[in-house]
Amino acid sequence: MQIYKATFIDTPSPNDFRIRADHYAVVQDGRIESISSELPVGSGHAEPIDLGPGFVIPSFIDLHVHAPQHMQMGAGLDLPLLQWLESYTFPGEARYANREYAADMYAHFARELKRQGSLRSVVFATVHRGATDLLAQALDDEGLSALVGKVNMDRNCPPELAEDPEASLRASEDFCRNWMDHPRIQPIVTPRFAPTCSSPLMSSLGDLAEQMRLPVQTHLAETEPEVSWVSELFPENSSYTQVYHSHGLLKEGSLMAHAIYLNEEELELIQHAGAWLVHCPSANVNLSSGIMPLSSYWKRGVQLGLGSDVGAGHSLSMARAITQAVQMSKILTVMKPEEKHEAVSLSQAFYLATAANGRYVSQYGPAECGPCGIFDEGMSFDALAIDMHMPAKADLSHRGLLERFLYCGDDRNISGRFLSGRRL
Amino acid sequence: MQIYKATFIDTPSPNDFRIRADHYAVVQDGRIESISSELPVGSGHAEPIDLGPGFVIPSFIDLHVHAPQHMQMGAGLDLPLLQWLESYTFPGEARYANREYAADMYAHFARELKRQGSLRSVVFATVHRGATDLLAQALDDEGLSALVGKVNMDRNCPPELAEDPEASLRASEDFCRNWMDHPRIQPIVTPRFAPTCSSPLMSSLGDLAEQMRLPVQTHLAETEPEVSWVSELFPENSSYTQVYHSHGLLKEGSLMAHAIYLNEEELELIQHAGAWLVHCPSANVNLSSGIMPLSSYWKRGVQLGLGSDVGAGHSLSMARAITQAVQMSKILTVMKPEEKHEAVSLSQAFYLATAANGRYVSQYGPAECGPCGIFDEGMSFDALAIDMHMPAKADLSHRGLLERFLYCGDDRNISGRFLSGRRL
Repeated sequence: MQIYKATFIDTPSPNDFRIRADHYAVVQDGRIESISSELPVGSGHAEPIDLGPGFVIPSFIDLHVHAPQHMQMGAGLDLPLLQWLESYTFPGEARYANREYAADMYAHFARELKRQGSLRSVVFATVHRGATDLLAQALDDEGLSALVGKVNMDRNCPPELAEDPEASLRASEDFCRNWMDHPRIQPIVTPRFAPTCSSPLMSSLGDLAEQMRLPVQTHLAETEPEVSWVSELFPENSSYTQVYHSHGLLKEGSLMAHAIYLNEEELELIQHAGAWLVHCPSANVNLSSGIMPLSSYWKRGVQLGLGSDVGAGHSLSMARAITQAVQMSKILTVMKPEEKHEAVSLSQAFYLATAANGRYVSQYGPAECGPCGIFDEGMSFDALAIDMHMPAKADLSHRGLLERFLYCGDDRNISGRFLSGRRL
Repeated sequence: MQIYKATFIDTPSPNDFRIRADHYAVVQDGRIESISSELPVGSGHAEPIDLGPGFVIPSFIDLHVHAPQHMQMGAGLDLPLLQWLESYTFPGEARYANREYAADMYAHFARELKRQGSLRSVVFATVHRGATDLLAQALDDEGLSALVGKVNMDRNCPPELAEDPEASLRASEDFCRNWMDHPRIQPIVTPRFAPTCSSPLMSSLGDLAEQMRLPVQTHLAETEPEVSWVSELFPENSSYTQVYHSHGLLKEGSLMAHAIYLNEEELELIQHAGAWLVHCPSANVNLSSGIMPLSSYWKRGVQLGLGSDVGAGHSLSMARAITQAVQMSKILTVMKPEEKHEAVSLSQAFYLATAANGRYVSQYGPAECGPCGIFDEGMSFDALAIDMHMPAKADLSHRGLLERFLYCGDDRNISGRFLSGRRL
């Protein structure tokens, strides 16, 4: 048992921050047993550990990130999606055929992810089975928890990345079996996106997900040219979303990244299936893709999460994803007043990166992951201790310090990282 | 004389980066005497100093920043401009009546500005004469160069900040005389913006600028409610720009921050006067103000610069201002395709923060400041040495490293800072 003393800030409701100054959290077997303003009686000889003069927030969860693209973060962002894939991403990912390179780069990625406070994540690798094992291993070595996907694609990509559809399926199946029983790492079925996957490949992956009871992640409706391309590639399907649905890939817990250009029928299909949409605001602005109508989706009850989408997103920090989500929602209200969008508040965006993403990983993630993303009894003690090192005279409130961390802070302000009660 | 060996990257033209790998810059009396790929003959006994494995860029220049707002950076950004001023900015600025507080906070600000590589800047203080002296002193103490303005306002602000118009003028005049002959610090006339300045105050400040041959800085057309308010406050003027013009404040070298909502007549007036518009993309998105049509202004030849606008902007890093300028220009093309805006490239935004801002400070700034912002013969050696600490295997090009610094880097990547040849 450990007792941590701190000011705890979280979002049980998206509408505002809950700020509990100088509280004591009792942590037993990785879970929060109690949290209160009084040192609990009967806590015996456990000495409270003071987590510092700042505050403590739930550790971040990144619901969409491409590990191999970490090395290209920031590069080529003057290009739109499809050209950026061709010119930067595919050549970059092809290098992961080399295991030595992959081992080094993924070790670097895992360290950076931890440094930025994203202690849980849902990650794309590349098509390479060997390298994907190395990625899962690197995340595990850093003590992180993640859903990891070997990418599948068998067309519309450079020859060195195009898989034989049957070999692609077998490699994914092997990867999934290999990591199936790991406490902190879980496989996730990962067709890259409809344009690079043939119909037979997608169907077989849908079957795999069904048989192994695994979730699915992919990309959906990120840009208008992509949507047009998909309608040409799959003329028998009435929409992009329908393509995934008809191949068994749109189901409970399916993660659909971006999802900017959806019609009413598609939204209904997504909600009915129990799939999730992952907002990736940095990537969407960097590649001039557009802005997801986040507040409108939220209002209708679509299940939503937030992702960094590195490398089209240019930061592994979920604090940056949070503030960029707020920024983009504001811009949408200003640019399209006639569409009556609402700006997303800082607490709402924070809620996505912690409570909402936490709900996803606790439902569909690895065995070890209990409920997380909020500091309540029974929840996993996943936490970041934050110290803003401000001059004493600045005299900022806890809310002021939190705002400053989210907008202006960096990894130097994270003084402690806890996952399931373990200090990393 | 010093000789520096480095890969020099700059933008003599906005259209692309100029990358000169492994060149030698000979620096004499703070200026670049020559720059070439060969160690110059006759350089005598001067041993070249290697500036490291990364690259060197012109040091940043911030054309619009509020020093007292550094402490509120990131705070209250869910509010629009006028409410944000009332709730956060005015109460924060009122604290600078206390000189001890001001001295501490401005010392902190100057250190941070240097840390982020903005070695030259154009800065707003508060209405307080005493604190404004302390700001100028703090910048000087860090070896930085700046134009510094005591803010003037005599209405529509809290009583403790509202000045008597004559006392306001005298205080500004005294401040200007006090710093007039300093080599690195120069006063600039600084009416906050038309809503908080009476007509007599603005006229007297226009006269002051004329008599002392000083430039002017203020805010213009940042939000639509502000534009409406100005038209109510000054019904005799045909536009917001005309308000400044009729009070002698719109003239050669006048800096007008934001300038989002301008009509054709106003743009003509600005260009005819030789005034400059300062783009502050972070602030404009944070306060839901809108997006400056940067590419359209650029095409018609308006003189443009770039500012962080801390504290409505949430970072003192001009690298962040550069990437946010690119992002906002992209969003504008996507959201308003019918207006035919063009996205601004990374090199164009970089040009603004270095070459364009450099042209401004060399024309209107302190005596010591020669031509700067580019690495050419005769230019001031103002430079940042950048080291991205990337794994060797990542194998990034110089352009790739620069892109990564601008999008993802921070002050830890700045390994050297030079202003007029002095290492800071």
